[in-house]
Amino acid sequence: MKPFCFAKDEIIESKLATSHPLDIGLIRGYAIFDFFRTVGPNPLFLEDYLLRFTNSAKSAHLPLAYSKEDLEQIIHKLIAKNELENGGVRMILTGGISDNFFTPASGDLFLFCEPLSLPSEEKYSKGVKLLPVEYVRPIPKIKTTNYTLPCFLSVDWPSQGAEDVIYHHQGLVSESSRSNIFMVNDGIISTPATHILEGITRKKVMELAANVIVRDIRLDEILVADEVFMTSTTKRIMPITTIGNQVIGTGKPGDQTVSLMAAFENMEKSLLFSSL
Amino acid sequence: MKPFCFAKDEIIESKLATSHPLDIGLIRGYAIFDFFRTVGPNPLFLEDYLLRFTNSAKSAHLPLAYSKEDLEQIIHKLIAKNELENGGVRMILTGGISDNFFTPASGDLFLFCEPLSLPSEEKYSKGVKLLPVEYVRPIPKIKTTNYTLPCFLSVDWPSQGAEDVIYHHQGLVSESSRSNIFMVNDGIISTPATHILEGITRKKVMELAANVIVRDIRLDEILVADEVFMTSTTKRIMPITTIGNQVIGTGKPGDQTVSLMAAFENMEKSLLFSSL
Repeated sequence: MKPFCFAKDEIIESKLATSHPLDIGLIRGYAIFDFFRTVGPNPLFLEDYLLRFTNSAKSAHLPLAYSKEDLEQIIHKLIAKNELENGGVRMILTGGISDNFFTPASGDLFLFCEPLSLPSEEKYSKGVKLLPVEYVRPIPKIKTTNYTLPCFLSVDWPSQGAEDVIYHHQGLVSESSRSNIFMVNDGIISTPATHILEGITRKKVMELAANVIVRDIRLDEILVADEVFMTSTTKRIMPITTIGNQVIGTGKPGDQTVSLMAAFENMEKSLLFSSL
Repeated sequence: MKPFCFAKDEIIESKLATSHPLDIGLIRGYAIFDFFRTVGPNPLFLEDYLLRFTNSAKSAHLPLAYSKEDLEQIIHKLIAKNELENGGVRMILTGGISDNFFTPASGDLFLFCEPLSLPSEEKYSKGVKLLPVEYVRPIPKIKTTNYTLPCFLSVDWPSQGAEDVIYHHQGLVSESSRSNIFMVNDGIISTPATHILEGITRKKVMELAANVIVRDIRLDEILVADEVFMTSTTKRIMPITTIGNQVIGTGKPGDQTVSLMAAFENMEKSLLFSSL
């Protein structure tokens, strides 16, 4: 983490930030958050992230004492104070101290700046492996801190050569633990419609690719797709070349995936120049 | 909460206890805990709770720097310091500060003493209502802090006259959000076998009732059962007289439920006297 954070109404040293252990954010895993990147010191797609964060708070019944405009000011101040370049900003709103240790209350807002390194060049050029897991996230549209299952499973990923999981339920694919999933088959790009977090990177990819079909996708379909990729804030577009024991397509990142990866990077660059 | 707690290796004022907000206990909801009652100042079934807590830590890949014996000493010291009588003790082990903000690391241990009031006499005499919810907890045998869904849903329970939920998945009942479920039909007591936390109160009830059948139980079976009840540390045995819109049995706590409720209280009393 970077030296300064925003904690409970003020910018302080990050190492001095504290949350009370009886906050239901800790004892019940009840909190919401969001995370965006900066290109140089400039937040990428900040409007989208602030809208999702404030919507998450509202949907989760958590009062947020700051408007989107307030948050934007705090963010710019914090980025400047930390001299953050090409990093990440994490916003957390806890569930608060609850009278019955359970019902959502009124929590604390924290913002941290973090150094961020994108995945290795090798992962982008070779693609990565996902492990199918039967699971569906509860209240998936709200960006909660509910990652108990994938954190638990992540201990075994290195020994299995896996980057992450791919969730499926009743035969349908939803998402990876922190990424959205796309499939390319016969030139048509599609992405799951339900039980997903509506990713900002997913949204941008759908703007770039124009004709993405949003529908239910079966696990057995995706296993025989020509190309599969996942999208997330910290990965942009990452080719998936293996799911479980199944090699996807040629086993290499496909043409449409590679083309979208380039288009996404170009969009980022153009936004950077337009903001200078 | 009571005035003193155990936080990161020492007994301090509870209000001064702190956890770092970047602990994955908060940002990923990755932590384990346990909770037991005291009868007077005496912990009830402490051996069982300490065994489950240390097992949860181990299963969740979280190092715990204290043995069961260490924990027992700390607990007795903390109860005495707080002059706790008929209260609750919460033990929390966080996931720690993780290099990748995700993989289980080495966290902090917290113990809090809390005042505890059992549910109202009216709830025990009339029984309560549960709402069926299609859900199954991930890694259910580990007592994680993963309560995102029921905390979210709990906002609507008062207006629905409900005490809690009853989880079912693929037609099978598992548990309530913080309680185990039992059913009585034609004089036979049974309880779900899978996708459950193995409750200490559940275990004690199975010792008292001797011939409880542990098997898969369908939601449609339980809806037409003669009696249903739930068990938990903070409730002991609570009659369930309504599930969704369905009245259970006569709509009043059944004979076997009432008889077990009395037997459980007697067991508690006898343990108290034997410890004096």
